[in-house]
Amino acid sequence: MLPDRLRRLVQLLGRFPGVGEKTARRFALQLVQDTDLARDLAQELAALPGSVGSCQRCHGIAEIDDQGQFICDICRDSRRDDQLLCIVGRVQDQLSIERSGAMRGRYFILGRLLSPLDGIGPDDLPMAELTRRCSELGVKEVIVATPSSVDGEATAFLLAQEIGKLGIAVSRIASGVPHGGDLEYADQVTLGRAIAGRRGIDVGH
Amino acid sequence: MLPDRLRRLVQLLGRFPGVGEKTARRFALQLVQDTDLARDLAQELAALPGSVGSCQRCHGIAEIDDQGQFICDICRDSRRDDQLLCIVGRVQDQLSIERSGAMRGRYFILGRLLSPLDGIGPDDLPMAELTRRCSELGVKEVIVATPSSVDGEATAFLLAQEIGKLGIAVSRIASGVPHGGDLEYADQVTLGRAIAGRRGIDVGH
Repeated sequence: MLPDRLRRLVQLLGRFPGVGEKTARRFALQLVQDTDLARDLAQELAALPGSVGSCQRCHGIAEIDDQGQFICDICRDSRRDDQLLCIVGRVQDQLSIERSGAMRGRYFILGRLLSPLDGIGPDDLPMAELTRRCSELGVKEVIVATPSSVDGEATAFLLAQEIGKLGIAVSRIASGVPHGGDLEYADQVTLGRAIAGRRGIDVGH
Repeated sequence: MLPDRLRRLVQLLGRFPGVGEKTARRFALQLVQDTDLARDLAQELAALPGSVGSCQRCHGIAEIDDQGQFICDICRDSRRDDQLLCIVGRVQDQLSIERSGAMRGRYFILGRLLSPLDGIGPDDLPMAELTRRCSELGVKEVIVATPSSVDGEATAFLLAQEIGKLGIAVSRIASGVPHGGDLEYADQVTLGRAIAGRRGIDVGH
């Protein structure tokens, strides 16, 4: 019942993460009614691929520079510690860690996690590129910050094996009860990990 | 921390209904990584305002015709009953009613509902246009299909007053327990309305 053009738009909007057909249709109807929004968005999107892209070094978000290179602000920042590398699954995860201010090294974004159920095996991860990046930077320590899920854990295990072979120390971010989280509402796995990962309390003597 | 262009994109995507900053950021990151999607979407959006718009007669979804007019398929359909007009708040609601196949007349989309809390009063509704449309079509009966909310009810009441003055019969869609809905999970207002709106059962003798 929708015009063809609108149906194509609904289909494209349905490719946004977490957006089903019904939500995509609501977005499309909004765009029909708000022509300013449609025009502005068309302009921004047309300009996007040529100006913002994936960083050639870490796969983070980068703006194009005068030489036509995509290198992100973090990879350009000379004050960062080259010997410390944080490996994450997605750009979003990198942005979250950056906001925490707890990481002073470099990053590498895998773009995907091991996922046997989705047919993503070790060969689908950019291991050769990661190894090259480690030697370019002279990395001494890798922190694996993949999520605390089955896929995230499997990926961390593989990375620990492969990077361990290079003589680089590999650690995993801690898993436990979130800050401010009520123990009553924490699930069993989280509580189990919080207890298994317990640490001594430094009372200062 | 995001490039300016990406921040502008996040801002625009945040104008989609029900999309907050976090979701808008996820959409924007997807668009950076999926350049095909960004390009296709840019093209569709650029072409949208000139080809799909608001129907000049009912404010539904219309494609532009050879004369540069926006008139929707329903308004063009000569088999529709001109004497029956269904008034809805939003285009989405019209699409839902059309899918039900229960409406054989014409439509008029208000675009908004009375909402004292949001400062939308009777003067903000297109009453003059609606009155003109009723006389153009020779409408004899109006079905008000605004939602069963405070704003929807207030709008229905105002419409019944104004359209009643024109000597046109005005009815309201029924409010009650949804088809297949479990009474156990229906809220009190819905149950109250279902009981108040009870109808005799025709047993055929």
